[in-house]
Amino acid sequence: MADILRGGQFLVKETKCDAIFTPEDFSEEQIMMRDSVKEFVDKELWANKERFEKKDYAFTEECMRKAGELGFLSVAVPEAYGGMGMGFVNTVLVCDYISGATGSFSTAFGAHTGIGTMPITLYGTEEQKQKYVPKLASGEWFGAYCLTEPGAGSDANSGKTKAVLSEDGTHYKITGGKMWISNAGFCNLFIVFARIEDDKNITGFIVENDPSNGISLGDEEHKLGIRSSSTRQVFFNETKVPVENMLAGRGEGFKIAMNALNVGRIKLGAACLDAQRRNITESVKYANERIQFKTPISSFGAIQAKLAEMATSAYAGESATYRAAADIQKRIEIRQEEGNTHQEAELKGVEEFAIECSILKVAVSEDIQNCSDEGIQIFGGMGFSEDTPMESAWRDARIARIYEGTNEINRMLSVGMLIKKAMKGHVDLLGPAMAVAEELMGIPSFDTPDYTELFAEEKEMIAKLKKSFLMVAGAAVQKFGQELDKHQQLLMAAADMLIEIYMAESTILRTEKLVKKVGEEKAQEQIAMAQLYLYNAVDIITKRGKEGIVSFAEGDEQRMMLMGLRRFTKYVNMPNVVALRDKIAAKLISENQYCY
Amino acid sequence: MADILRGGQFLVKETKCDAIFTPEDFSEEQIMMRDSVKEFVDKELWANKERFEKKDYAFTEECMRKAGELGFLSVAVPEAYGGMGMGFVNTVLVCDYISGATGSFSTAFGAHTGIGTMPITLYGTEEQKQKYVPKLASGEWFGAYCLTEPGAGSDANSGKTKAVLSEDGTHYKITGGKMWISNAGFCNLFIVFARIEDDKNITGFIVENDPSNGISLGDEEHKLGIRSSSTRQVFFNETKVPVENMLAGRGEGFKIAMNALNVGRIKLGAACLDAQRRNITESVKYANERIQFKTPISSFGAIQAKLAEMATSAYAGESATYRAAADIQKRIEIRQEEGNTHQEAELKGVEEFAIECSILKVAVSEDIQNCSDEGIQIFGGMGFSEDTPMESAWRDARIARIYEGTNEINRMLSVGMLIKKAMKGHVDLLGPAMAVAEELMGIPSFDTPDYTELFAEEKEMIAKLKKSFLMVAGAAVQKFGQELDKHQQLLMAAADMLIEIYMAESTILRTEKLVKKVGEEKAQEQIAMAQLYLYNAVDIITKRGKEGIVSFAEGDEQRMMLMGLRRFTKYVNMPNVVALRDKIAAKLISENQYCY
Repeated sequence: MADILRGGQFLVKETKCDAIFTPEDFSEEQIMMRDSVKEFVDKELWANKERFEKKDYAFTEECMRKAGELGFLSVAVPEAYGGMGMGFVNTVLVCDYISGATGSFSTAFGAHTGIGTMPITLYGTEEQKQKYVPKLASGEWFGAYCLTEPGAGSDANSGKTKAVLSEDGTHYKITGGKMWISNAGFCNLFIVFARIEDDKNITGFIVENDPSNGISLGDEEHKLGIRSSSTRQVFFNETKVPVENMLAGRGEGFKIAMNALNVGRIKLGAACLDAQRRNITESVKYANERIQFKTPISSFGAIQAKLAEMATSAYAGESATYRAAADIQKRIEIRQEEGNTHQEAELKGVEEFAIECSILKVAVSEDIQNCSDEGIQIFGGMGFSEDTPMESAWRDARIARIYEGTNEINRMLSVGMLIKKAMKGHVDLLGPAMAVAEELMGIPSFDTPDYTELFAEEKEMIAKLKKSFLMVAGAAVQKFGQELDKHQQLLMAAADMLIEIYMAESTILRTEKLVKKVGEEKAQEQIAMAQLYLYNAVDIITKRGKEGIVSFAEGDEQRMMLMGLRRFTKYVNMPNVVALRDKIAAKLISENQYCY
Repeated sequence: MADILRGGQFLVKETKCDAIFTPEDFSEEQIMMRDSVKEFVDKELWANKERFEKKDYAFTEECMRKAGELGFLSVAVPEAYGGMGMGFVNTVLVCDYISGATGSFSTAFGAHTGIGTMPITLYGTEEQKQKYVPKLASGEWFGAYCLTEPGAGSDANSGKTKAVLSEDGTHYKITGGKMWISNAGFCNLFIVFARIEDDKNITGFIVENDPSNGISLGDEEHKLGIRSSSTRQVFFNETKVPVENMLAGRGEGFKIAMNALNVGRIKLGAACLDAQRRNITESVKYANERIQFKTPISSFGAIQAKLAEMATSAYAGESATYRAAADIQKRIEIRQEEGNTHQEAELKGVEEFAIECSILKVAVSEDIQNCSDEGIQIFGGMGFSEDTPMESAWRDARIARIYEGTNEINRMLSVGMLIKKAMKGHVDLLGPAMAVAEELMGIPSFDTPDYTELFAEEKEMIAKLKKSFLMVAGAAVQKFGQELDKHQQLLMAAADMLIEIYMAESTILRTEKLVKKVGEEKAQEQIAMAQLYLYNAVDIITKRGKEGIVSFAEGDEQRMMLMGLRRFTKYVNMPNVVALRDKIAAKLISENQYCY
């Protein structure tokens, strides 16, 4: 198990394609699970899509109950508490395929199975788990997560909701208002964060929903998208909560909230994937059917380019999501073998890959937005109509960049956590960064390498891109030290570099593994997607790297780093991306669907 | 007047800053006009914003009547027909400032004053103009434009609506269905395009709205945005139209439609500008008010960067829009001096700058989308709520990339028209393109230029960017000749280069002119915006140039062109864009509004 990388290490170590898990590696059980989720989505959800758009909250609840009957709510729940106790990959897989329907259902699903249930499975006492988890796993009960307040959004630990211990010490009285509470309209249980006295950190509580206990709801919010996700304010007025319903210890709420979000982030990323596949399939179908200038518009290069980019980002999102999910699962297994409880193992396993979780949240939530945006453009005027599926897809996608930590927060976290890991010695950034700095002082090789093997240049490019990040981030840390987090523009630029490296590497490794299995001939389009993704990534890294360098380096240092960046982003054989897009689109068009 | 450039010539000739018109050059009359439009928007429209969101079509109509009373509908209409007969710049100015309210009103306004009225003022007979234009100018009547059909969108000339001459030769009977008809619900007059017999091209007609004459409407469409713009299908069933209501000649409808769209495109671009200013102001205010981590979020670099980019794109949009509007106005005046009628002069004046109109339509419609998108992100969770202004801004913006020709169509048109102009000898592309090709063969100068004057490097960069376009487009034309329009991906890449050149040059020239007037000290932020815009433009041109080159050039040719592109996009002194954004944002934040 020594070859299993730790979180963040992807940046400084080479990963072999055999070391990653890919969608092509799904087991029979996973394929069955996928197919049953897809069937549920097609028959129950997609077929009734207009009910979601009409804000039919009762229908959302009804579908959630059906999902419970089919076992989809219990995938991640240990068998001891009525769940299926499946691995982390399966958990992510269900989030992925449930997203093919509508953003409303995906949000309800995620809010319940993720942040509505996991704080108990991960932090609950045995009694708490026995009491609540089986009901949540079966869909008898639904959960909701009450963290955000009007004055406490990104700054989650600043909430004003109070928990006051009763004089007899048997219960807390919770008073305060929470907002943006998904599933509030039909949930039986709230995970509530409140502050005891003047504690620095908030504390988590399990609060049963009982209107007679000082709990009241605001009206349904009028939202841009996810129209039939019930989102309401929740008010607690001296709501009595037995002391035994405290989650973990006093003042540990912020930790619970953050760890719940780590898990939530990779699941949220996953929950944009099948939505993308659906958007692509709908777009291809429309482009094949829509005749203008006496030909299907799918015959136009401008449309083909869009389809190819849409498919490439979905393929990349799949590649990185399942890679990270399996890495997390392996880490959990290792910890369990080492004697950790399931709870500890799962917590630490996910925390280990918090950087990757943030990366995925940002990348895939932005991909689904772009994908639905291009979908509208392909549909033309019809794309602007509620009668076609792109309209709601575009609106629904918009929330994914905001919740579970805005993409700005997650960008800063990804780099911030990496630097923290380096400081703690968990990831050796310093050594590789110094090696890069030394390399920059040396004379570069002017030999033209002979790339004959598949992906030889691409893999070297990935190695160089990592150097470019290490160069920029290393110099920035040296320059600003602890003050670095005040330089948000620089952090954002560095984050984009980090994100693209992880996504591009994952895409190439997945494809390399696929080629080993089926040969180059049968994976031509996947090869093209990996190359196209990398090409786009190189552009972003060049752009953002330049920005970062020029923001803090001057004179000779700047010149040297810009030269380094050019060297680290230089193709020997620049790929013809127009031809790559043509190839990727041709298959989509002939298959009339997303087919990768 | 010899120094007035013709349409498209910006690419091959240097423009001096004194030769362009800028918002800083507004006359007192223009400032009065702007302020009265702003007052109308604030008091009548913005104050009642929620009525638009509630699909209160009657309110839209009511506001249109008020706009008529205030004279805003008649700005572009000649005095002879009851209008104010103001110049083209004023026309554009009204479109600009009317857009500050809501996308619904702006669409209703544009559909009426532009495509609903202009086909008559531009192509009507004296009788037609006398009969209809005064009513349209005053707001007694409203117009709508019936071009699109279910099977004829981008391919506008393929409509199936028929016009059959009556046996007695007195009238046509029009039969067919039109869709996406803005203002259909309350208009008095339709401009209808229909085909006579098997004509190659469609023909335009003025059709009075009379339900007893075979005219019926579909239900209101359910749209993603512009909720209170009335958009319905219009069905004509043997609708009788007197022969004297034909617009221009038989088969001239496609020309009318296209020319109406040319004017519409620059106006549509303009009609995204004040919407952007409003979004920026709302975003700055929110960022200044919203406290997280014990400080206004406007103190965070990640937020500041967004505000700076939003302002820069608005400033660039203004710069290019008013430059083009005044160039059109000058061309109209020249033609009138040369003896053209107002009609001919206006038609030819706008047609001359059709390339710039397409450029503006694409650039500004994409800027408003980005601007409202970042606005949502700044508002965070609240941005996803219908209770805050970004939500509708984002939805409303989405249509601008679709109507008046999708941005894909306009991108291809911009390059296509340029090449046509070159073929006709109206713009000498060949000479400059050959000069660039020759320059590439020569040895570049390795002297480091000494840029002391303001914008010295930026202006040289603009000249180089033009060379990069000429290099790529020149080689592409040479390679593909008439077949070039089959290479849409290449055309799209070239279009992006063209667009960025025009926008960046306009921004720099405007700022240079401003500095001449007020000095560098007072124009620091504007200087920063011009530099930031250019920096971003260089990145886009580099990216798209590379794509274009690699798509058709191989071996030595490719190497030489890629080297040329590097040379033509290379900064001597790379600007610190992070510092530029900081500077731009600081002023926005202290002024608490868009202030440029």
